[in-house]
Amino acid sequence: MSLRVGYLGPPGTYSHQAALQQFSKLETKREVSYLPQKSIAACFKSVNDGTIDYALVPFENSSNGQVVFTYDLFKEWFMNGGELKPKFKIISEQFVPIHHNLITYSDCIEKITKIYSHPQVWTQCREFLADLDVEKQDTSSTSKAVEILVQLNDHTTAAIASATASDVYNVPILQNNIEDNSNNTTRFLCLGHNPLSSSTTEEPNMHLVTFSIKENQQPGSLCDILAEFKSHGLNLASITTRPSSIPWQYVFFVEVWDGPGLYEVLENIKDLVTEVAVVGSFNRKLK
Amino acid sequence: MSLRVGYLGPPGTYSHQAALQQFSKLETKREVSYLPQKSIAACFKSVNDGTIDYALVPFENSSNGQVVFTYDLFKEWFMNGGELKPKFKIISEQFVPIHHNLITYSDCIEKITKIYSHPQVWTQCREFLADLDVEKQDTSSTSKAVEILVQLNDHTTAAIASATASDVYNVPILQNNIEDNSNNTTRFLCLGHNPLSSSTTEEPNMHLVTFSIKENQQPGSLCDILAEFKSHGLNLASITTRPSSIPWQYVFFVEVWDGPGLYEVLENIKDLVTEVAVVGSFNRKLK
Repeated sequence: MSLRVGYLGPPGTYSHQAALQQFSKLETKREVSYLPQKSIAACFKSVNDGTIDYALVPFENSSNGQVVFTYDLFKEWFMNGGELKPKFKIISEQFVPIHHNLITYSDCIEKITKIYSHPQVWTQCREFLADLDVEKQDTSSTSKAVEILVQLNDHTTAAIASATASDVYNVPILQNNIEDNSNNTTRFLCLGHNPLSSSTTEEPNMHLVTFSIKENQQPGSLCDILAEFKSHGLNLASITTRPSSIPWQYVFFVEVWDGPGLYEVLENIKDLVTEVAVVGSFNRKLK
Repeated sequence: MSLRVGYLGPPGTYSHQAALQQFSKLETKREVSYLPQKSIAACFKSVNDGTIDYALVPFENSSNGQVVFTYDLFKEWFMNGGELKPKFKIISEQFVPIHHNLITYSDCIEKITKIYSHPQVWTQCREFLADLDVEKQDTSSTSKAVEILVQLNDHTTAAIASATASDVYNVPILQNNIEDNSNNTTRFLCLGHNPLSSSTTEEPNMHLVTFSIKENQQPGSLCDILAEFKSHGLNLASITTRPSSIPWQYVFFVEVWDGPGLYEVLENIKDLVTEVAVVGSFNRKLK
């Protein structure tokens, strides 16, 4: 049976690109089926119930920060008193450069009168669009924009989308890398039940830990938790918060570099937190 | 001259409601003019150059978390090596309960075939909408939806928006509080050059501090900063991060309860940070 890999659809999204990046070089004899999912929540659910083996979900963008939907799903699955009992964890990460492309059947930019894309793209391609006198039409995803081009099949419209969308729908790229910031990168996480066979030779060097602090008006409750990590020589790579179910209280997410003391730290902070969970362990990829 | 108070427009938004909440009970002889601004960035710019005296900007929602546009504007104004030299600071906060209302000229819900609102509203009124067989039409703001109703002037359309929007456009509320979560609240901050005269009798008890940590692969760099706050008995109310201009590095925002040692702490952490700024000091309002 082929390996079933889910991603936030439709085909041609940057999530699809992340899935291809993760699995196309996999040294395994198994075939890979890439299966678009309707939402990030569906990615979590399908990987948990085994409908798919792995799922790629967006987690953080270098310019825009947290993908809050994904953080909130980790919160729901891992921090609700263990009600959902997740069978999956994070097993890998992928950094995907976000390069936007002008995709069209037209051979000449002057013929284009209308461009379709996701609303976020307009602010990411401000310099390119400033010189054009075209109508901008919002779509639900960048790859949906290319799908619309296929239906229209004319030379006056274009889409702005990923190179993968151009491949998937077989519509040419007229101009590539039209984004203002060529360093814009999104980090995706791969969810699954088991480590990938290709990575079993490497020990994971990063852990994502989530916790909520005990209600405590004393100064230094977060400091005391972080001091435990420090005293075991464990360095944090990131720290961030999301609202908890209690208004104006927070769930914390920290990424911690691996070291011998992690599980001792988690034991030591038990009195300071209401809940704590390791969402996953994975190798830090090159950025 | 009247007091000029800006807010994220158009009239009738929850930002408008925050402005009314902040200034309608002001014990001053001065008249207040409420001036809609085109964007949150325009609120910052207008208050800085003195076109308006105060501006209300959304900062955090109890369910959805950070309003990232506002955080990023604080980052731009206060954390770019002091290039922009802001003349304003945060001088107050307002908690605004988010209650959605079905606003329509119709006297009967069964006649309604189409509802206009901001896309976020659909997920916030899921239970109410589940029972209705209507077409949903996205608008750029909830109050824009009511403005459209006025133009249409018929009995088959409705908008979902704030009570302030119903007042501003004089269209009746057919059903109020149709949101799923009646505790959903947005916190707004008031920006200005000077404290409000009404609040001068009270000492501010909350400070918003922003800093970026020196590039440091040693464990415990954040811990060392928080330890300074702790050793001076200063409790944090919140901590959160946004991406800095360097990919995968972060700018921190902490809210700190007032205490005698704050400026000593800021002096002591100078060697641990590349930049640090107090964005403002204000009274914690009742939630």
